[in-house]
Amino acid sequence: MRQVAVVGVGMTKFGVSEKSELEMFSEAAMDALNESNLKPKDIQALFLGNAVGGLTEGQTIIASHAAAEIGLQGIPATRFEGACASGTMAVRDAFMWVASGYYDVVLAAGTERQTVTGTAFATRIMNTGAHSFYESATGITFPGMFAMMAHMYCHKYGIPLEKLKKQMAMVAVKNHKMGVLNPKAQFRKEITIEDVFNSMMIASPLQLYDCCPISDGAAAAVIASADVAKKLTDKPAYIVGVGQGCAGGLSTQRDYTRLIARESSAQQAYQMAGLTPQDIDICELHDCFTVAEIVATEGLGFFDFGDGGAAVERGDTQMGGKVVINPSGGLKSKGHPVGATGVAQVYEIVNQLRGSCGARQVEGAKIGITDTMGGPFASVGNIILRRGW
Amino acid sequence: MRQVAVVGVGMTKFGVSEKSELEMFSEAAMDALNESNLKPKDIQALFLGNAVGGLTEGQTIIASHAAAEIGLQGIPATRFEGACASGTMAVRDAFMWVASGYYDVVLAAGTERQTVTGTAFATRIMNTGAHSFYESATGITFPGMFAMMAHMYCHKYGIPLEKLKKQMAMVAVKNHKMGVLNPKAQFRKEITIEDVFNSMMIASPLQLYDCCPISDGAAAAVIASADVAKKLTDKPAYIVGVGQGCAGGLSTQRDYTRLIARESSAQQAYQMAGLTPQDIDICELHDCFTVAEIVATEGLGFFDFGDGGAAVERGDTQMGGKVVINPSGGLKSKGHPVGATGVAQVYEIVNQLRGSCGARQVEGAKIGITDTMGGPFASVGNIILRRGW
Repeated sequence: MRQVAVVGVGMTKFGVSEKSELEMFSEAAMDALNESNLKPKDIQALFLGNAVGGLTEGQTIIASHAAAEIGLQGIPATRFEGACASGTMAVRDAFMWVASGYYDVVLAAGTERQTVTGTAFATRIMNTGAHSFYESATGITFPGMFAMMAHMYCHKYGIPLEKLKKQMAMVAVKNHKMGVLNPKAQFRKEITIEDVFNSMMIASPLQLYDCCPISDGAAAAVIASADVAKKLTDKPAYIVGVGQGCAGGLSTQRDYTRLIARESSAQQAYQMAGLTPQDIDICELHDCFTVAEIVATEGLGFFDFGDGGAAVERGDTQMGGKVVINPSGGLKSKGHPVGATGVAQVYEIVNQLRGSCGARQVEGAKIGITDTMGGPFASVGNIILRRGW
Repeated sequence: MRQVAVVGVGMTKFGVSEKSELEMFSEAAMDALNESNLKPKDIQALFLGNAVGGLTEGQTIIASHAAAEIGLQGIPATRFEGACASGTMAVRDAFMWVASGYYDVVLAAGTERQTVTGTAFATRIMNTGAHSFYESATGITFPGMFAMMAHMYCHKYGIPLEKLKKQMAMVAVKNHKMGVLNPKAQFRKEITIEDVFNSMMIASPLQLYDCCPISDGAAAAVIASADVAKKLTDKPAYIVGVGQGCAGGLSTQRDYTRLIARESSAQQAYQMAGLTPQDIDICELHDCFTVAEIVATEGLGFFDFGDGGAAVERGDTQMGGKVVINPSGGLKSKGHPVGATGVAQVYEIVNQLRGSCGARQVEGAKIGITDTMGGPFASVGNIILRRGW
């Protein structure tokens, strides 16, 4: 298979938007194309992540409409859906169609507009990711699932709940601190541990500030063969590893602190890249809830199982730490328009590798990994990017 | 890229089912695996077409749940959505992951349960395939779009509407005649031209019997590298060409009798296969409405533009004709559980190549093509299969 690189990226501001999913897609896509010195007609295929547009905007087959929105017809345009992991699925698949030699230049993107339905209905819509027979019917929602993850984590490792709660709050504080430095982030406000503890209880032990927001936004990445990439940019970011893994609903998983989907996916990505977790400088991961960040840092191999919470306390995940986790502010602060999230993680890693992140720049970042999780811990995707210059 | 083959196929009966999309998937998938002499653990990735499960069953990220339903975890499981073309997108993508050399054995499948919501809501759900801003809001539905196609066809080629209506009715009669011979078909009842003309008017000139039904069902295909295929079966059906094309909504298309999406897709597939329309023995195509079959036979290159209706009258598309169209009974008679349709077309072609179709067998069929269209003529996929023995 051929070497593959990201040559240009684009992203809307995340937050509350009056634009449609198609309009936000266009904005991000045209930014990515402009950065790549390409025009829409240079794109050979579109790979689009979108999780719930059928339920929020009443729009299915959105990839075809999106392609046409930027003037493209005739090319293959495919929607990928794996709940919150949709965007990463699109990037991973785009990678393969270029790596195989079939296409030279393609566009991977993600778009999602979720604030339009209001929070209550948005929560019900997200719940379609749960198993429709065995889970949704019980009344459990995603905050409830991640609350169970937190309790299981404490139980398994003998960590007092109050201790984990403080570590989780420190994740929120860290990610908000980074979000202040990201002009595309939804929340640009520092918070304190006390703010977290004083916020509304959502699903014990998760309080409001342990939860990422509901968001609108889009992101896009132009992906090309290494040969083409070299002609378009002097800073190509090589995609050196991809992975994707699945699990069924909660009833098919025994241990919510060790996710089958992630451990399989990460292994695939590291193996393809010939890298280990110790080689990673920066990581954009799926902190939909603060506890999810702690569990993800362990599943990705950065810390021993059971040590992820302590690692936060040691400062290992913050700017200047062992591996900088979510320099963009993460889902928690940057926002989480679900179908766009995986592509926005690629946007951040590419910009970090380029050294173009300004005040939130991780000095000398050479290798980064993304991590996106969908559904009841039911799908995880990973993309490893390496500086190509 | 490597040669790729279908080694085993499975399919539920199409019609009205009390089973869920996951249960129907399991049935089709296990049939395909059994026929391939494989077990679930042999499958390296799942590619699943599903169009509107989020709206009908409240189930998203269905590919992960589907994988788990047959005991698979850890592997990548991806849902593909392009309205009625979803299943073909899954097959085409599965092809690439094997052709590239990355996987040796994967499962492509489609599942859809649409009768559960009732016809009125099913129509609204299908309408999410239209452009949510420019089309859905106008009140147009898919029968209306294909009615416009029929009127434009008559206008463009100077064909009296009554003449086209008879040709369309002959499509329905032909496909019902084949459906009688297909034990998996939803409708196994011969109809007459008079039955069509006496049926309820839906969207002039389309009457009830010009329209395919709303259906439940699933289909699956095990796809492997040629080397692996040879070990598993003495009758591999090679995938020798794939294509996919898009268009935007109706407002982006000038001529509904010449579909941008199909003409691009078919060209890609024929070119990859090194074949022409004259090489094709059998074709399973997207007769969601009878006029759609006529237009498709022209877009696929079997007949001159404007001659598709006359071809039906000449008997060119029936058993024993120049190219047998929809030997399975087509969407019109076999049924159209949308996400499953593209995979079910592969199921029929593979069985025709094998000579295992009994009373509906097309003698000596060696090369077949599938054609699946989604949305407002917004996506078309094609798969060309060739007998491998």
